[in-house]
Amino acid sequence: MPIYPEPMRILGIDPGLRTTGFGVIDVDGQTLRYVASGTISTTRHIENGQLPARLKILFDGLREVVTRYEPDAAAVEIVFVNVNPQSTLLLGQARGACITALVHSGLPVAEYTALQMKQAVAGYGRADKAQIQEMVRRLLTLPGLPGPDAADALGLAITHAHAGKAMARLAQAEGLGGGQGTASYRDGRSR
Amino acid sequence: MPIYPEPMRILGIDPGLRTTGFGVIDVDGQTLRYVASGTISTTRHIENGQLPARLKILFDGLREVVTRYEPDAAAVEIVFVNVNPQSTLLLGQARGACITALVHSGLPVAEYTALQMKQAVAGYGRADKAQIQEMVRRLLTLPGLPGPDAADALGLAITHAHAGKAMARLAQAEGLGGGQGTASYRDGRSR
Repeated sequence: MPIYPEPMRILGIDPGLRTTGFGVIDVDGQTLRYVASGTISTTRHIENGQLPARLKILFDGLREVVTRYEPDAAAVEIVFVNVNPQSTLLLGQARGACITALVHSGLPVAEYTALQMKQAVAGYGRADKAQIQEMVRRLLTLPGLPGPDAADALGLAITHAHAGKAMARLAQAEGLGGGQGTASYRDGRSR
Repeated sequence: MPIYPEPMRILGIDPGLRTTGFGVIDVDGQTLRYVASGTISTTRHIENGQLPARLKILFDGLREVVTRYEPDAAAVEIVFVNVNPQSTLLLGQARGACITALVHSGLPVAEYTALQMKQAVAGYGRADKAQIQEMVRRLLTLPGLPGPDAADALGLAITHAHAGKAMARLAQAEGLGGGQGTASYRDGRSR
């Protein structure tokens, strides 16, 4: 019994209140294949007091992505506190709306830090935006550079693909239910 | 054309990641009538890494409340940044899931600060929890004190009822579309 179905389709999400990036890839053995990527923008409703309308755009937009591409799992970036506490609160609300859209669609949600994503994609936790864009372009053999938000989202999907492979190897070596895989991936499995 | 239908049913929400309070009241002219109140608890999933599961409980729980009581509008407390930035982030995510559940159900969402709620309920912005519980009990002629989370949620619903009346009076005096009502209420009207 495999840890997850192969081939598997993974949706990566880089949450933000202004712009949320998404990226969809297929994983089949060692092969990663680009499916789609883009951003959901809420800047049309940016005036003060429009928070509910902006969260609805994020929720509806991600649900539309899930309906269109039918991923098997999602990976969301773990956001950190900002120097500006008000920004932290806004980002938290955006991330809450994004995760809610995913779990409402029945998707298992894994969480990874930017550090984990950068290590998985570029082999270097302090890689900058341009390096991530270039590595994502190479790993998915894209004809051009993805935008920075979409690149981060595709990077998260790639990170989840790698974590899944590591988990599968561990499970094969130790029997199902064993393994010391990342906590975030294991939690992501529970529906 | 009235600003909102009379009688009107209002759902108040006091968002929190551990415990979210809700309270439902009917407004008919000067009469406020208690309908229901309670809390949604996510503490069964409190271990680290269970955030998506907890946000799903909040989202599903609030949708169940909306389905059961069919409110016409919702009022949500505006939360403030905490001394602990990590708590701010968690609270933001919980609030994002709550608001998402409301807008997904097609409800107009108004936002009020705790100060506005305390002034509306107790006539005093620095009223403490016990005073709010007691004033909510009196205003809704409850047989006993509501719990603190439910009392805050009922207080928000009462605040929205008062704000709506003020808006209606302004609209009558100045013609529809006029008035200097609170921004939060006006935003809440846009679906």
